[in-house]
Amino acid sequence: MFNNYAALKICIRFKYTAMVLILLVLSGVLSEGPKAAAEDSFSPYVDSEGKITRPTEFREKWTYLGSWVHPEDKKGGFHNVYTQPGVAEAYNKNGGKFPDGAVLVKEVMSEGAMDMTTGKGVLHAKDLVLWFVMVKDEKGRFPDNPKWGDGWGWALYYADAPSKDVSTNYKKDCLGCHIPAKQTDWIYVEGYPVLK
Amino acid sequence: MFNNYAALKICIRFKYTAMVLILLVLSGVLSEGPKAAAEDSFSPYVDSEGKITRPTEFREKWTYLGSWVHPEDKKGGFHNVYTQPGVAEAYNKNGGKFPDGAVLVKEVMSEGAMDMTTGKGVLHAKDLVLWFVMVKDEKGRFPDNPKWGDGWGWALYYADAPSKDVSTNYKKDCLGCHIPAKQTDWIYVEGYPVLK
Repeated sequence: MFNNYAALKICIRFKYTAMVLILLVLSGVLSEGPKAAAEDSFSPYVDSEGKITRPTEFREKWTYLGSWVHPEDKKGGFHNVYTQPGVAEAYNKNGGKFPDGAVLVKEVMSEGAMDMTTGKGVLHAKDLVLWFVMVKDEKGRFPDNPKWGDGWGWALYYADAPSKDVSTNYKKDCLGCHIPAKQTDWIYVEGYPVLK
Repeated sequence: MFNNYAALKICIRFKYTAMVLILLVLSGVLSEGPKAAAEDSFSPYVDSEGKITRPTEFREKWTYLGSWVHPEDKKGGFHNVYTQPGVAEAYNKNGGKFPDGAVLVKEVMSEGAMDMTTGKGVLHAKDLVLWFVMVKDEKGRFPDNPKWGDGWGWALYYADAPSKDVSTNYKKDCLGCHIPAKQTDWIYVEGYPVLK
């Protein structure tokens, strides 16, 4: 019923099956590696000193929150705001609270205007001008960094140097425009229908 | 060097390893089931007769293409356009061609206006009005369905009955407004900066 030869054959068969399956499983595990690593730290966009890196994949892969459109400002009046996948859902589940690590990107663009069958001078986004980035920080992680405070990290990048955060102090550079939205954690949520 | 007992031990070890790994791999394969099934058909939003179902997850999970904003039309002048993840990338890779099965959703909303530090009467999207949906069809799949033609399926849903496509004939209900965009496959791509 069971001899050396039969045992060897069965064993070799399962051995190669096992090896192939081990490789398949490992390839799956390894492909999840970077994601798992990023989740271990506060944010993939923030280093240990609080330096904020501008996200680049938000147009294709993030949730669009809404736009603020300034009819009189053709040079930089089209403001589109995005956040990571899952943030809107977390905000709605959690009674209107942005989760720790949530990133908002406001992409400021110039405006084009077209006469269309639906109206004259219909506005659309045209050329890049700058990006504002905010990172939600529930824990006050960077008390000595003047770009962090009031529950957020604050950054500003111009289109001609898209990797360089040119803000120096959020109180001076950023907070002024957000004061009217203080009651909603400094964010103008009225323009974001996906937030309930 | 190799006897019955050793062979049996090794074999049993690999046999159970193989079984566990087979189960792991199968669980992964099975969890992909619904996705794989959807990919087998033309589109999860189109039935065998060409009836188009309105996507509902586009706000959170799809790519935002851009907005058309009508400053004079507060009741329904804010038009936000979305497409599935991956469509913009495919369009750009493929020389400006929408892939077969690509869905565009235009969400038409009323407008709110706020005086802000950045300008007066700044417009934002407010309440739902209606949705236009288009589905790219390279193969002319529904020649006898008057809601399909010129390379697309066309549908229209009002906010008070969001599951009911009220269009009857795309040539009568839809095409008129798209004629100026005929050269770009009937789509106003000028307003979609993510498309190159």
